[in-house]
Amino acid sequence: MMSARFRAVVEYDGTEYAGFQRQPDQPTIQGVLESVLGQLTGGPVRVLAAGRTDAGVHAEGQVIAFDTGWSHPVEELHRGLNALLPDDIAVRRLEVAEAGFHPRFDATSRVYRYRILNQPVRSPLRARFVYHEHRPLDLQAMAAATELLIGTHDFATFGLPTQGEATVRQVMNVCWQQCGDGLLSMTIEANGFLRGMVRCIVGTALQAGLGEITLNGFQTRFQARERSQTSPPAPPQGLCLTSVRYASG
Amino acid sequence: MMSARFRAVVEYDGTEYAGFQRQPDQPTIQGVLESVLGQLTGGPVRVLAAGRTDAGVHAEGQVIAFDTGWSHPVEELHRGLNALLPDDIAVRRLEVAEAGFHPRFDATSRVYRYRILNQPVRSPLRARFVYHEHRPLDLQAMAAATELLIGTHDFATFGLPTQGEATVRQVMNVCWQQCGDGLLSMTIEANGFLRGMVRCIVGTALQAGLGEITLNGFQTRFQARERSQTSPPAPPQGLCLTSVRYASG
Repeated sequence: MMSARFRAVVEYDGTEYAGFQRQPDQPTIQGVLESVLGQLTGGPVRVLAAGRTDAGVHAEGQVIAFDTGWSHPVEELHRGLNALLPDDIAVRRLEVAEAGFHPRFDATSRVYRYRILNQPVRSPLRARFVYHEHRPLDLQAMAAATELLIGTHDFATFGLPTQGEATVRQVMNVCWQQCGDGLLSMTIEANGFLRGMVRCIVGTALQAGLGEITLNGFQTRFQARERSQTSPPAPPQGLCLTSVRYASG
Repeated sequence: MMSARFRAVVEYDGTEYAGFQRQPDQPTIQGVLESVLGQLTGGPVRVLAAGRTDAGVHAEGQVIAFDTGWSHPVEELHRGLNALLPDDIAVRRLEVAEAGFHPRFDATSRVYRYRILNQPVRSPLRARFVYHEHRPLDLQAMAAATELLIGTHDFATFGLPTQGEATVRQVMNVCWQQCGDGLLSMTIEANGFLRGMVRCIVGTALQAGLGEITLNGFQTRFQARERSQTSPPAPPQGLCLTSVRYASG
């Protein structure tokens, strides 16, 4: 039986997990995926991912890849995965990929969304997926601050490189939306993100939205390129990896 | 200290609860509310509710009432409640009510919403709040079936009276909406609901949507006024008590 490389789009509610990356003695998305793939294919399977989301962070469009021998139709593997995976993880799409496909290195950009519920009272029906801020936020001030991030910059203030890499990233887009009921949503697209970057950007933008720092203050912190200049990261439950983009498809 | 009657609008994620109504040795919404109110006011508090939602059913707009002596501003009781209540229960509004206010007997109608995710793959981010049906549903057939329910009818097929009452209810409105991403939503308003009524209506409408029964078949079952004629109830997690209406406010 020939081994093939598969590519999958995965959705998960990260609430109950210690993040994507496998860790001993902790529930992780990678751990569950590898265990279920092992059950189905009868051999050890190693999963690669586009982004290592933190504990409590969600994904609508995480992209993973793995090699396995599978002699049945792909649809059967897809159905089998969703039958065995727990309710909080599902494979949205599954297909055979090119042999060398790597979900992380081949990605041209990632898109994250951060949701803030800005109303006096918290909302139990949305508690798992939003950060609740009861004080009024100035959306214009937050949007003006994050607008400064667009372009190619050193983001050392907001995040750590995963392995001694450079801290320069290209942010293609930052967009804020106000939905009904006090729901604010920031969508940010970049060629890559440093560890903790989105949550520290949101945490610092929240300070701008609360009037605790000015637009100039935000820019000064950003340009300092020092971790000491970031505000504390916004909590994980508001964050979701919505999609990963590739040059082809 | 004079005792006053309070009225509150309560939102909850019912996933972890054995329903609204207090039961020994089981987590219930009423049990948690009464316990937290007791802590805050220093005495036993009994909570009345507009509707006794089943295990796993949610509410955006459950209305409750209780009597307690509280000599501080109402806002302090409101803040105290939301500080002590768990993440999955919150008080959206709190006010002093007229002495005789009863959330159940004074209600003129209740509005429930049932959400169905109709797409091939289930969605972890919505799993707590939708019923997932992977087979294609005929929305027109379901809407035509539930249209038959509008008016004053005997709903004995779909539900049980709570205490030997009559099974006639008035359904004012049934409305289906199709949102993006395969999300179907039925909103139903009635002067009152029998036990299990909405979920059995949805369960039977689902059979119509799957082509397993015709519109005539649905009507025959409805008009039989016999519990044996209902389809199994749709699962609880799709159901939410969205609001309760009163003659004044």
